[in-house]
Amino acid sequence: MTQRRAVEPSGQLSRATAERLSHYLRCAIHHPAGSPLSSSRLASEVGVSDAQVRRDLAALGHLGQRGVGYDPAALAAAIRHTLGTDRGWRAVLVGVGNLARALLRYRGFREQGFEIVGLFDIAAEKIDHDVEGLRVYPVRELIERVGQLKAELGVISVPSEAAQSVADALVRAGVKGLLSFAPTVVRVPANVQVVNVDLAIQFEQLAFLVKHG
Amino acid sequence: MTQRRAVEPSGQLSRATAERLSHYLRCAIHHPAGSPLSSSRLASEVGVSDAQVRRDLAALGHLGQRGVGYDPAALAAAIRHTLGTDRGWRAVLVGVGNLARALLRYRGFREQGFEIVGLFDIAAEKIDHDVEGLRVYPVRELIERVGQLKAELGVISVPSEAAQSVADALVRAGVKGLLSFAPTVVRVPANVQVVNVDLAIQFEQLAFLVKHG
Repeated sequence: MTQRRAVEPSGQLSRATAERLSHYLRCAIHHPAGSPLSSSRLASEVGVSDAQVRRDLAALGHLGQRGVGYDPAALAAAIRHTLGTDRGWRAVLVGVGNLARALLRYRGFREQGFEIVGLFDIAAEKIDHDVEGLRVYPVRELIERVGQLKAELGVISVPSEAAQSVADALVRAGVKGLLSFAPTVVRVPANVQVVNVDLAIQFEQLAFLVKHG
Repeated sequence: MTQRRAVEPSGQLSRATAERLSHYLRCAIHHPAGSPLSSSRLASEVGVSDAQVRRDLAALGHLGQRGVGYDPAALAAAIRHTLGTDRGWRAVLVGVGNLARALLRYRGFREQGFEIVGLFDIAAEKIDHDVEGLRVYPVRELIERVGQLKAELGVISVPSEAAQSVADALVRAGVKGLLSFAPTVVRVPANVQVVNVDLAIQFEQLAFLVKHG
């Protein structure tokens, strides 16, 4: 789904580990409060080995008791702290089409601390209109408004051919990370992080499962 | 992004391998035609070791020449064959909202062989209207129409609370795989495959990169 990097961003936790943590977090969130969550349950839910789970979670500190399992709430809190989602993140979105409207209504984002606080587009008929309670501003105002809005992240939901120029504008405006839904790879400076969401990969994984399942 | 399973569906290739193949495929597609693609290039693009790349691709047959690299077109063809995307897949979509409209326009799907051929909703005001050139049918007609449409897959783009009942209806209608965009886990029988697309995981990965990057 995403642009990977060989170098581990934290110097300790790799992207692959971070992805497993996201999946463990889902298990912890859906697990009954107070009932211990075993590493074997996590392993089978996420599709990795028990040893892998214990290795991954050992890096988060002393969480589980041998033979007892993890407290789901404590586990979720520890994972969110490691991922950096134990605090809110403010994002601006560029490209106010159907995907943008869907993302603005997507509860999963806000539940995990991700808030879209500003909308931008180049289409005159969209500018100065409200979408899901947010005013749409012209892209040329990104630089001034990203600071005013205290946004650290940018969401790109424009067509492929516009994605790189929008990414460049967001980088100039000072965002530290980009979530791009354009079905193309966007390039950014090394001090900016980017996750390219490629929905076709999800379909490929499904085709693989149906073919071999 | 997806519901993983500990058991390897093909008995040989794991889900993790299939996900890496999807990323190698992206590199092969974006690589200049005719110019060899090295395993080290693939490794750095996808963020795994050279050895991992060579192991993964060795399983696809004799593709590369030692010291020369892989032909991007041959590599892409071999990966598509393994993933099962070397042929078209027909899908019906349930829940005709903004996300559905975005998915219907999402070029990345059709480029990888994934075609949405039927739309379903429960809202009277949507039924019998055309969206992106497709007629919207009532959900109660799923069973008869999935067969007529020769659809093997189902896309779920309804709110969380409706996702499981829609999944049940699609399973009764005979689809073999579900791509669910509802931010909840849907349960299906063992003979049906499901990929739960959880967009918040992408945001978590971005937060992690920005925090540690």
